[in-house]
Amino acid sequence: MTDSHSAILLISCPDQKGLVAAVTRFIFEQGGNILHLDQHVDAEASAFFMRVEWDLHGFGLERDAIATAFDLTIARRFNMTWSIAFSDSVPRMALFVSKQSHCLYDILGRVQSGEWKVHIPLIIGNHDTLRPVAESFGIPFHTFKITADNKAEQEAAQIALLRQHNVDLVVLARYMQIVTGQLIGQFHNRIINIHHSFLPAFAGAKPYHAASARGVKLIGATSHYVTEELDAGPIIAQDVLAVNHRDSVADLVRKGQDVEKLVLAQAIWAHLNQRVLVYNNKTVVF
Amino acid sequence: MTDSHSAILLISCPDQKGLVAAVTRFIFEQGGNILHLDQHVDAEASAFFMRVEWDLHGFGLERDAIATAFDLTIARRFNMTWSIAFSDSVPRMALFVSKQSHCLYDILGRVQSGEWKVHIPLIIGNHDTLRPVAESFGIPFHTFKITADNKAEQEAAQIALLRQHNVDLVVLARYMQIVTGQLIGQFHNRIINIHHSFLPAFAGAKPYHAASARGVKLIGATSHYVTEELDAGPIIAQDVLAVNHRDSVADLVRKGQDVEKLVLAQAIWAHLNQRVLVYNNKTVVF
Amino acid sequence: MTDSHSAILLISCPDQKGLVAAVTRFIFEQGGNILHLDQHVDAEASAFFMRVEWDLHGFGLERDAIATAFDLTIARRFNMTWSIAFSDSVPRMALFVSKQSHCLYDILGRVQSGEWKVHIPLIIGNHDTLRPVAESFGIPFHTFKITADNKAEQEAAQIALLRQHNVDLVVLARYMQIVTGQLIGQFHNRIINIHHSFLPAFAGAKPYHAASARGVKLIGATSHYVTEELDAGPIIAQDVLAVNHRDSVADLVRKGQDVEKLVLAQAIWAHLNQRVLVYNNKTVVF
Amino acid sequence: MTDSHSAILLISCPDQKGLVAAVTRFIFEQGGNILHLDQHVDAEASAFFMRVEWDLHGFGLERDAIATAFDLTIARRFNMTWSIAFSDSVPRMALFVSKQSHCLYDILGRVQSGEWKVHIPLIIGNHDTLRPVAESFGIPFHTFKITADNKAEQEAAQIALLRQHNVDLVVLARYMQIVTGQLIGQFHNRIINIHHSFLPAFAGAKPYHAASARGVKLIGATSHYVTEELDAGPIIAQDVLAVNHRDSVADLVRKGQDVEKLVLAQAIWAHLNQRVLVYNNKTVVF
Repeated sequence: MTDSHSAILLISCPDQKGLVAAVTRFIFEQGGNILHLDQHVDAEASAFFMRVEWDLHGFGLERDAIATAFDLTIARRFNMTWSIAFSDSVPRMALFVSKQSHCLYDILGRVQSGEWKVHIPLIIGNHDTLRPVAESFGIPFHTFKITADNKAEQEAAQIALLRQHNVDLVVLARYMQIVTGQLIGQFHNRIINIHHSFLPAFAGAKPYHAASARGVKLIGATSHYVTEELDAGPIIAQDVLAVNHRDSVADLVRKGQDVEKLVLAQAIWAHLNQRVLVYNNKTVVF
Repeated sequence: MTDSHSAILLISCPDQKGLVAAVTRFIFEQGGNILHLDQHVDAEASAFFMRVEWDLHGFGLERDAIATAFDLTIARRFNMTWSIAFSDSVPRMALFVSKQSHCLYDILGRVQSGEWKVHIPLIIGNHDTLRPVAESFGIPFHTFKITADNKAEQEAAQIALLRQHNVDLVVLARYMQIVTGQLIGQFHNRIINIHHSFLPAFAGAKPYHAASARGVKLIGATSHYVTEELDAGPIIAQDVLAVNHRDSVADLVRKGQDVEKLVLAQAIWAHLNQRVLVYNNKTVVF
Repeated sequence: MTDSHSAILLISCPDQKGLVAAVTRFIFEQGGNILHLDQHVDAEASAFFMRVEWDLHGFGLERDAIATAFDLTIARRFNMTWSIAFSDSVPRMALFVSKQSHCLYDILGRVQSGEWKVHIPLIIGNHDTLRPVAESFGIPFHTFKITADNKAEQEAAQIALLRQHNVDLVVLARYMQIVTGQLIGQFHNRIINIHHSFLPAFAGAKPYHAASARGVKLIGATSHYVTEELDAGPIIAQDVLAVNHRDSVADLVRKGQDVEKLVLAQAIWAHLNQRVLVYNNKTVVF
Repeated sequence: MTDSHSAILLISCPDQKGLVAAVTRFIFEQGGNILHLDQHVDAEASAFFMRVEWDLHGFGLERDAIATAFDLTIARRFNMTWSIAFSDSVPRMALFVSKQSHCLYDILGRVQSGEWKVHIPLIIGNHDTLRPVAESFGIPFHTFKITADNKAEQEAAQIALLRQHNVDLVVLARYMQIVTGQLIGQFHNRIINIHHSFLPAFAGAKPYHAASARGVKLIGATSHYVTEELDAGPIIAQDVLAVNHRDSVADLVRKGQDVEKLVLAQAIWAHLNQRVLVYNNKTVVF
């Protein structure tokens, strides 16, 4: 999908004529060959979104110079919000877990096998339960027991640890604690959660019990960026699977875990590959 | 699926030992060969459900005598709620519509082509819009304009018409009116509605607008029996399809129509084939 | 999705630097605002594909002049294969049918309800069976009985009729005859067929019987452009649904019809909306 | 799903009247309460299939005596092929792997987390590549390098090892070697393979390359029992996912791995829970 030496621009700005022409001309004039270009206009919001990836082989600007040049010649002119990334960079991702291991195993298996280019410098748990899993993969595990009394303090310590490890992305891999604005503010649109229902149905605790009580014929999972309003952040990925009257709550839990781990993996993959733009509490996933 | 000369028993009762043995022995002793048997126990509710279909060829009892015999020898002993139907009977189904035709065309096409064994004696609309569709299929169309003032009166007239036509099942095929307890009471668990969202998400009006505003990545449809609480009746069938940021509300409406008509068709088919049992505001769909 | 007054360019050419920049600059310089742009590079084939749609409001060129200007200034320079269409044009589509009506009803319902902007000037059948359906929708129906002896002659007559009605697109809506190179040559990449299996599995006749014999757990349908090699043309859309051991061949036929009509509708919609490019016997569906 | 102290009978036999009545009466007379009963008749093959699970609490026969009693009083009379299992038994499963780890990680994560009740006494590889994965989970790993010359000999050694560990089930978790009749004969309907295509499409080597060349819009995976004819054994589970023109062969491989591991897990779970019956090279999966 992504070549190892390419640059990726993610852009959003007010819609206007000439945006695509200006960006693609910038790349062309420096000798770049466009590998992928996705563009979207939200007509109602009059908002423009673009992801463009080009081969850096023979490109006229050094990596460090691209951002400056783009900012001066294009971005300011069109009032763009933008970011640049390089396909060969390796982001640093922290995992938060509780007692359930299915998402953790799935993520670690993907990283270990080389499916994803990402480094996991640490795993944080609010219980010790999954320490052996972390250790079997050679990843440091830090336990932060959380009580009503120590929550703010523990979260501050978690933030310090994340900063110390230069973490780019935080993944709540079935972390059964609500994170607060303190942490969210430090990692704006960089904390991904997996909720075990098809949001907005069954937000909050015990969604499989609620799904069983309502007698739904599908259960789902939703991966979203964490915002201060619980289970209401921008949705990155969702999926469902069919269930029926034979499925007890325990069956929903067991079957749901497969959807949870797949949907979370899709969201992480999209984020790591610079495919997600957020606006109006929604996402554009290129 | 269903042989043309078979009997189908639908049973629910408190769970206890010997239920399957008693029912299957009843059938066996009269020389019936079981074609399909589905059984379910809801352990939590301690409730037993069963659907059994057997070949009537060479069966020892006349059709009229089966119900009496089953009631006396089996049903009373186990305190069963039950019904019997015959695969060669042709139920009578009324359709309620408003202005949108996709579900109507889908249903009429299935009936006309012989996919379903059902008779449609009449179609009721709260607008005249779809009269030509009904007429092109040769089905009488009755318009009942509904206002806040005449609603009870019009519904009473609709009920009279349904009774006059010996209607067994009412299908709200995107009928944009809320039906009241007056009608629901007459057709308990025999009014099927299609709601254009994955319930319980986006109950109420304009679900596609709500789905777009929330930025969901799947949209769905839900078919359910109508109860007095709006959009909260027992769910019979649900399905979803993937959408993305490129889909405007108009796209959600267009794409959603395909799910709506399929999900409604699944629910109707299950009902017509005696596959649905209702308990605790949920369904067992065998 | 598609605004009513927009132009759509579909382009394919050898990949090279500056393609997107050149096309978007052409549009920008005439004052066009890009509504949708999709671009794809097949790196292995070194081939470039693009679909761009822009608002014609205030555009500097008349419709008739766009093609000439684009050809002279852009297309020739880059050796492009291209076509232009306008969102408010109404293509003319002919349907070929045999005895099964599910795809026919589905298509006619979509057209009649206004879901698709297309005109159906005629329906051709190799049997009379579906004449009443065509007539109930007010569409002329022509029967061409086909035998081994008269096939070439009848197909020539069909072609004459299609030409007389200025048909742009031919849809084989479960037409149970193999069309020959005579017809295919006249409508290159403009004949869409629906095959009732997940191709390349179960090509040829009686795919549901073959699927049942093999014991597959999914059945599918495939919509493709017709080429001279049977069931081997470029695939436009495919989908599947789950089946199980309880499903007889008759059940597979019944359930499969829902997939068939949906997949065929997806392919037709993509074609009508200028979303399909063909290369190397494959499709790019934007 | 499965209670911890229940018995499960899997039965197949020629269809005849009274089968369900006889089996359920046998259970009832010993005081057993039926938890789940699934029954299927293949009318064409005139074959009967049944899975029945009942609570052993208060059952009148000791575990050892059930088989004898059932055989004498029921099975012989109806010429049944049957097996009995107990929900609290822990089967022994061996894994065969090559170099790809996604299925291996998925299976080991499910076992380690307690999702499945199964013991894995050993993992066999034809390469050393995945030895560290096995060891990080504390499972003995045995390497059997295979050449054309030593294949029969190595397979004989594998069989000896499997017997020594009392292995009940062999799972080929992306094992890139064809196993021969020597091994298959020892584990009839007890070797599960995962093939990375929607069989029968793309049987044989390099299915993702073939799928890309054909331009399919879905890719799939198939889990089946291994028989001597390559990729032609009874299918247990299949699934697909949507792909498009943007997906290179490398993308198909990456995306396909998610389907492979899910489909293989479904098949293993069904087998471990005594849900699969094989006949006519097909499966009944209750």
